[in-house]
Amino acid sequence: MTTPKRTLKATHITMAHGAGGKAMRDLIEDVFVGSFDNSHLNALEDQARIDLAELQRDGNRIAFTTDGYVVDPIEFLGGNIGALAVNGTVNDLAVSGAIPKYLSCSMILEEGLEVAQLRRIVDSMRAAADAAGVAIVTGDTKVVPKGKGDKIFISTTGIGVIPEGIEISASRVKPGDKVIVNGWVGDHGAAILNARGDLALDVELHTDCQPLHELMQVMLKACPDLHAVRDASRGGVATVVNEFAETSGVAIRLYENAVPVRTEVRGVCEILGLDALYFANEGKLVAVVPAADADAVLAAMQAHPAGKEAAIIGEAYEGVAGRVVVQTGFGGERILDMLVGEQLPRIC
Amino acid sequence: MTTPKRTLKATHITMAHGAGGKAMRDLIEDVFVGSFDNSHLNALEDQARIDLAELQRDGNRIAFTTDGYVVDPIEFLGGNIGALAVNGTVNDLAVSGAIPKYLSCSMILEEGLEVAQLRRIVDSMRAAADAAGVAIVTGDTKVVPKGKGDKIFISTTGIGVIPEGIEISASRVKPGDKVIVNGWVGDHGAAILNARGDLALDVELHTDCQPLHELMQVMLKACPDLHAVRDASRGGVATVVNEFAETSGVAIRLYENAVPVRTEVRGVCEILGLDALYFANEGKLVAVVPAADADAVLAAMQAHPAGKEAAIIGEAYEGVAGRVVVQTGFGGERILDMLVGEQLPRIC
Repeated sequence: MTTPKRTLKATHITMAHGAGGKAMRDLIEDVFVGSFDNSHLNALEDQARIDLAELQRDGNRIAFTTDGYVVDPIEFLGGNIGALAVNGTVNDLAVSGAIPKYLSCSMILEEGLEVAQLRRIVDSMRAAADAAGVAIVTGDTKVVPKGKGDKIFISTTGIGVIPEGIEISASRVKPGDKVIVNGWVGDHGAAILNARGDLALDVELHTDCQPLHELMQVMLKACPDLHAVRDASRGGVATVVNEFAETSGVAIRLYENAVPVRTEVRGVCEILGLDALYFANEGKLVAVVPAADADAVLAAMQAHPAGKEAAIIGEAYEGVAGRVVVQTGFGGERILDMLVGEQLPRIC
Repeated sequence: MTTPKRTLKATHITMAHGAGGKAMRDLIEDVFVGSFDNSHLNALEDQARIDLAELQRDGNRIAFTTDGYVVDPIEFLGGNIGALAVNGTVNDLAVSGAIPKYLSCSMILEEGLEVAQLRRIVDSMRAAADAAGVAIVTGDTKVVPKGKGDKIFISTTGIGVIPEGIEISASRVKPGDKVIVNGWVGDHGAAILNARGDLALDVELHTDCQPLHELMQVMLKACPDLHAVRDASRGGVATVVNEFAETSGVAIRLYENAVPVRTEVRGVCEILGLDALYFANEGKLVAVVPAADADAVLAAMQAHPAGKEAAIIGEAYEGVAGRVVVQTGFGGERILDMLVGEQLPRIC
């Protein structure tokens, strides 16, 4: 690691840090290059240059994805907006079967943001990038006047390589397929709600923010023919399952009792009259796998730290195309719709 | 072109349009997919998948770059934030010599934004993408509450392919090299200032927002060994030339009389006591070329619509490393520093 240039004297972000001149250069060299530190970024060109031959070692297609992060508050138990911005995009790559490789980072800072807080967020991004085996190779910084933004918004964009033979798509769900989730559902949503202080609960709720690229490779080893996988972030497990049912033209049934939900999260849901199936997650995926491979995939997941609490939570069947139902603990069934209206604003 | 699903009934953006549920889906399918319309995006997967073989037809390296756009106002003479967000990233790819290929788009919308205005911006993005030969293949939309953003922020990230043999870098400027700009300097900065209504001038000032990928290929044909090229957006020509001088460890002299500045822009500068060399551009590049090739490159540029007013505006020389001086019309010289502090906030 090169020694960062400690060129930034300011304690708070000013409009000058987004003006393209010397102050911006100091911010970039000290905070961003100082932390992300890789040969692509350190060159300070306006674009990173990546050898196609290097990408081709892992496959013949790239996955390309982007996400904006506007979570409020920007720091919370178990993570912050920076860790989220890296893991979220890493996971959007990972669920296609891709091996995550390179990230870009576009920051929109609000005038007045504390530089110390920005450093913490950027350092979390670096740590998350290291854990996921990716490098943040290009970026941009803008500053908006106080009251025209909200501390920090981050957009990350990722490139990964999809190994040959993998065809994961929301359109490939077949009747009979099993639906698997890799652990506790709703942790992130509950953690953010609690961090806002609105709940006044005496519980510690941590985000589940984690990278899923290793877990995905373990799952693909157990079953190279995973049909559909998505990470269940904004909109939760309910939204992903609805997207699968609609895109594939099948019906999906979930078993309420089989969905892993922590007692504390269940408590938050009961207080607010909300359903954990709609709660955001930042380290959870929903996978649809051929029935014959379901047990093998489940076992492989449970053997990995990111899938210890994995569970089969439902199955696809020939029914009304696009319909999702939940079999409740009492044996009844209710329809689980796409989220209508707004449940939890700025959850990611 | 597929017929867009006119699923969006709302006239203004609400928090529900960023909540991950049905309202967001309607917004995406109607406004974004309806306009951008390409097979990658239409699949509505969480990531686009791109064949490496397709990229390899044009070269063996990709360029990868990102930029955030927060310009205020979001619509102005000759363009809007959408056209800027596409052309800006296309140009960051183009100046590396890359052929722009794919873009991602992350939108942060403020609650209350008029849907009709969003449609205009998105349609401008599509038009700009078509003009640059790129497709917007993946995206994300977030909504922040009224007063926590400012109408619309856009982050675009681009992938382009660099043809073999091209090595353009800010570090390759050599003493004797000529500095060329492709036309009128400062139009965008002046247009935005005027659009804000602060100047109360009775002139029409248009942004110069345009793609530079074709011009770059024309220049490379005239001289495959272009040394350094950057687009002179935020911070203007002065900032780019300072970056070249610093990175390459040379001195650069500009000839004030040779820099093309429109009379109207010159007028704005005089009123405000500002220097057009620091004004933002959105369709201007600064190229440093070997002296022997300068006339050929200049002629090639002038034969292309994006380079009609191109001019040789300076040269590199062996002097104080990193120093940039301007030879004034009166024969004197002044130092042209990096921009210190803030000149024009939210210019792009």
